[in-house]
Amino acid sequence: GTVTTDGEDLVINTESGIEVKTSDDLASFQLGGRIQWDYDATQSDDNGVDTKDFDVRRARLYVKGHYGDWAYKTQFNVAESEGADGGDVEDLYIRYLGFGSVASVTIGKQKEPFGLEELTSSKDISALERSAMTERYAPGRSGGIQLSGKGSNWTYGIGYFEADGDGSNDFNNTAITARGTFAPIQTNDAVVHLGAGYTTREADVQADEIDTYNLELAGRMGPFHAQAEYFDSEEGQLDVDGYYVQLGWVITGESRPYKAGVFKRVKPSSPRGAWEVIARFEEGDGKYSDVGLATTDGEQTTLGVNYYANKNVRLGMSYMDGEQASGESGDEVRARFQYAF
Amino acid sequence: GTVTTDGEDLVINTESGIEVKTSDDLASFQLGGRIQWDYDATQSDDNGVDTKDFDVRRARLYVKGHYGDWAYKTQFNVAESEGADGGDVEDLYIRYLGFGSVASVTIGKQKEPFGLEELTSSKDISALERSAMTERYAPGRSGGIQLSGKGSNWTYGIGYFEADGDGSNDFNNTAITARGTFAPIQTNDAVVHLGAGYTTREADVQADEIDTYNLELAGRMGPFHAQAEYFDSEEGQLDVDGYYVQLGWVITGESRPYKAGVFKRVKPSSPRGAWEVIARFEEGDGKYSDVGLATTDGEQTTLGVNYYANKNVRLGMSYMDGEQASGESGDEVRARFQYAF
Amino acid sequence: GTVTTDGEDLVINTESGIEVKTSDDLASFQLGGRIQWDYDATQSDDNGVDTKDFDVRRARLYVKGHYGDWAYKTQFNVAESEGADGGDVEDLYIRYLGFGSVASVTIGKQKEPFGLEELTSSKDISALERSAMTERYAPGRSGGIQLSGKGSNWTYGIGYFEADGDGSNDFNNTAITARGTFAPIQTNDAVVHLGAGYTTREADVQADEIDTYNLELAGRMGPFHAQAEYFDSEEGQLDVDGYYVQLGWVITGESRPYKAGVFKRVKPSSPRGAWEVIARFEEGDGKYSDVGLATTDGEQTTLGVNYYANKNVRLGMSYMDGEQASGESGDEVRARFQYAF
Repeated sequence: GTVTTDGEDLVINTESGIEVKTSDDLASFQLGGRIQWDYDATQSDDNGVDTKDFDVRRARLYVKGHYGDWAYKTQFNVAESEGADGGDVEDLYIRYLGFGSVASVTIGKQKEPFGLEELTSSKDISALERSAMTERYAPGRSGGIQLSGKGSNWTYGIGYFEADGDGSNDFNNTAITARGTFAPIQTNDAVVHLGAGYTTREADVQADEIDTYNLELAGRMGPFHAQAEYFDSEEGQLDVDGYYVQLGWVITGESRPYKAGVFKRVKPSSPRGAWEVIARFEEGDGKYSDVGLATTDGEQTTLGVNYYANKNVRLGMSYMDGEQASGESGDEVRARFQYAF
Repeated sequence: GTVTTDGEDLVINTESGIEVKTSDDLASFQLGGRIQWDYDATQSDDNGVDTKDFDVRRARLYVKGHYGDWAYKTQFNVAESEGADGGDVEDLYIRYLGFGSVASVTIGKQKEPFGLEELTSSKDISALERSAMTERYAPGRSGGIQLSGKGSNWTYGIGYFEADGDGSNDFNNTAITARGTFAPIQTNDAVVHLGAGYTTREADVQADEIDTYNLELAGRMGPFHAQAEYFDSEEGQLDVDGYYVQLGWVITGESRPYKAGVFKRVKPSSPRGAWEVIARFEEGDGKYSDVGLATTDGEQTTLGVNYYANKNVRLGMSYMDGEQASGESGDEVRARFQYAF
Repeated sequence: GTVTTDGEDLVINTESGIEVKTSDDLASFQLGGRIQWDYDATQSDDNGVDTKDFDVRRARLYVKGHYGDWAYKTQFNVAESEGADGGDVEDLYIRYLGFGSVASVTIGKQKEPFGLEELTSSKDISALERSAMTERYAPGRSGGIQLSGKGSNWTYGIGYFEADGDGSNDFNNTAITARGTFAPIQTNDAVVHLGAGYTTREADVQADEIDTYNLELAGRMGPFHAQAEYFDSEEGQLDVDGYYVQLGWVITGESRPYKAGVFKRVKPSSPRGAWEVIARFEEGDGKYSDVGLATTDGEQTTLGVNYYANKNVRLGMSYMDGEQASGESGDEVRARFQYAF
């Protein structure tokens, strides 16, 4: 039978989940999600507790859309890692688009604009888990209001957020967070990315205020890509810092996509898929929980290989080895099955 | 490419979320939801605890549809106010349509037929929050079975429900709840609405039985609208009552829609949107929790302004001021960003 | 207006929820779910606690799809029985289809391949609740990896699973589970089904290891259908067993569908719907919780009648009567309203 609409002409797109939009782009509606299923085995010299886990890492569904100058997104966890039930909300916001792409206003729960690796989707990061530095310093998602925009080779975001997570009085302590990026080189073959971020947060514990800044340097040259970030935070009397450096090579020759100040995952150009190897080294005050260590001074090395079966499916394996300044060490082997739709 | 169906001809409607139905109306499937993100600041003289919150108020998704004489709806919270996780179900029912619109049978979790303001969707109420009276007296959603119907200017509903909320023995205490409405005047310009409701509920606490009735009077004249409800409840030895009166003016000239015994929110006729101002006064035994007061005798005034940016988006601000009979008072400023899809 | 796609030609199917697939079957996307709303009244001689409940039994939504050789499914509870909130995940897996239907690999949370009644969807079982034997012996859903396949009249599945449910170290105890089925007779009129299953599970309690096997015998002759299963389990010192036998007759003449080693629910051939009566007897060590009894030696009789209003809707009533070896007894009356979409 036929399929028609009683309104404006519609176009259906099935690239990612399913999207229905009017051909004049007045309105859209999209449904999609991700499944990440992991095997991970950890062993730590310090506590002697080794674990073998085969579990969901992330399972999320989202609905997003727009009508005229207004857009929305709601993304929630169907299930999360470590036995937690679903039901938590990730993104949940309303966005005003009326000023064009140079100035959007986003109201609700969203990622604070801070950190290249943090702002890269978990579907798109090259290592299976983010660095101990990003885990330590990047604020992640919070409720708040953000002004953000982008041009052909720059982006910015600045926002006002709750500083202590969700609660019934969550604007008691607030944060101001901002980031800017610039790509002085951006050709088909090569990308150079520079970025910087800053967040200042009211706090009840340890210090009255936490001030953190970071610097981002990243690039791409054909099938090779690299990225590095440095973080420094003043938390009352405490001054902590750390950095990571990551290198990657897409063996099958594809380039890692770059768009609006972040990188995306490799899309294979052959039906046989694409292969990528990566290495990451990090050092400093970080949150080394992936290898069973404390939030402390240490260093960590990550080696990984990824197979991108098609635009939706990615299989990955990684080995992480960490050591605290106190001498204790731990490592983790992780395998991931990922379907993004 | 083309889009076809291997069954009956389909029509896609994108007015609210996305709906796909067969052109002969044999079957339908619809997906939609709402996001309400609020800022609210409260201060209470009695307890001295002032709060500033920036948080989701409601985030819901629903799926509904029908095939032949049978329909269903499932609506769940992605997130709810005050830090609660999602995962709670709102509507969840199966409905028999075989007798036509004069007599539907609805089985499952649904709103009990009681109270004009309660039965008006939270997307459509003119004040951002319902009155302390509706909060105090209207039973809201319960599991049960209801017979309901409507004609051109009348509606009714009568049902048998669980009286104490969900549980493993929830038909131990039951309730019978009924409502009827009639619109003696219903023209393009003017509406007069009359309604009455009654609920009798078995109870374990305070009283063996709770009997509550209410009266509804509402109307519309061009861009002006008004509604009032009176509630009276006998709860064993306790006899409590209260009322509210609400007035509204759509400054840009639109009329507030009225349909099947409830009002809907304003749909702007201009691409620049529609503006509405409202005022509400209430007095009596109510649940004054919005302004941080107890469930007690008191009075409360609400002033509000709404901007309807388009059929999906509504921005609103309100100021509420309440005072208990004991003299303690509290107030609240609230702003809302709402996207209904 | 028109509806088109910017990719491959699409076909929309509305048989079950809504499915969009490319006409070359390269990709698909489907959304659906189920609502089961139950009334049940139980009384037990032993504890004197009678309950009357009117509540959701299951409410689930799923999204599934595939692209090329890879498929996924995520199914979660919007709500579950006995007052539990939603948010739990049911199925959550990624599947590799590249070897064809004789050998699929499924990674994630899924049903372990064990037990005819367990592997029959709760939408499709003839009795409203599964037998005390299936509840006692079949492992149900677990995280793991499974190889499965099917031919015209056979199926198999073998997998490696977590043995103790979800947790942060859930491959500490693991299970191997397998099942095979064969249909020596499979015509339009008649089906004979044979099956066998085995699971061996590491355990921390009672025994180091639990070994369970079962045998399945089932068949269909026109409107009549029958199925029986025997279970035997060695749990350290403990050796327990039990069986059930179930008979059914579709009064209106339809046949119960059989596909890939399990039965489906009756699809009415008339717009007036289809009627079915069933009887089940079971005896042995089982989990008699439906009638308020313990997991113990006993016997139970179930009588049921089902009305299939259309392909989506099923109404059912059942009476269950159970007795423990110790002499205590209990019974349950249950009515169900089911909409599968």
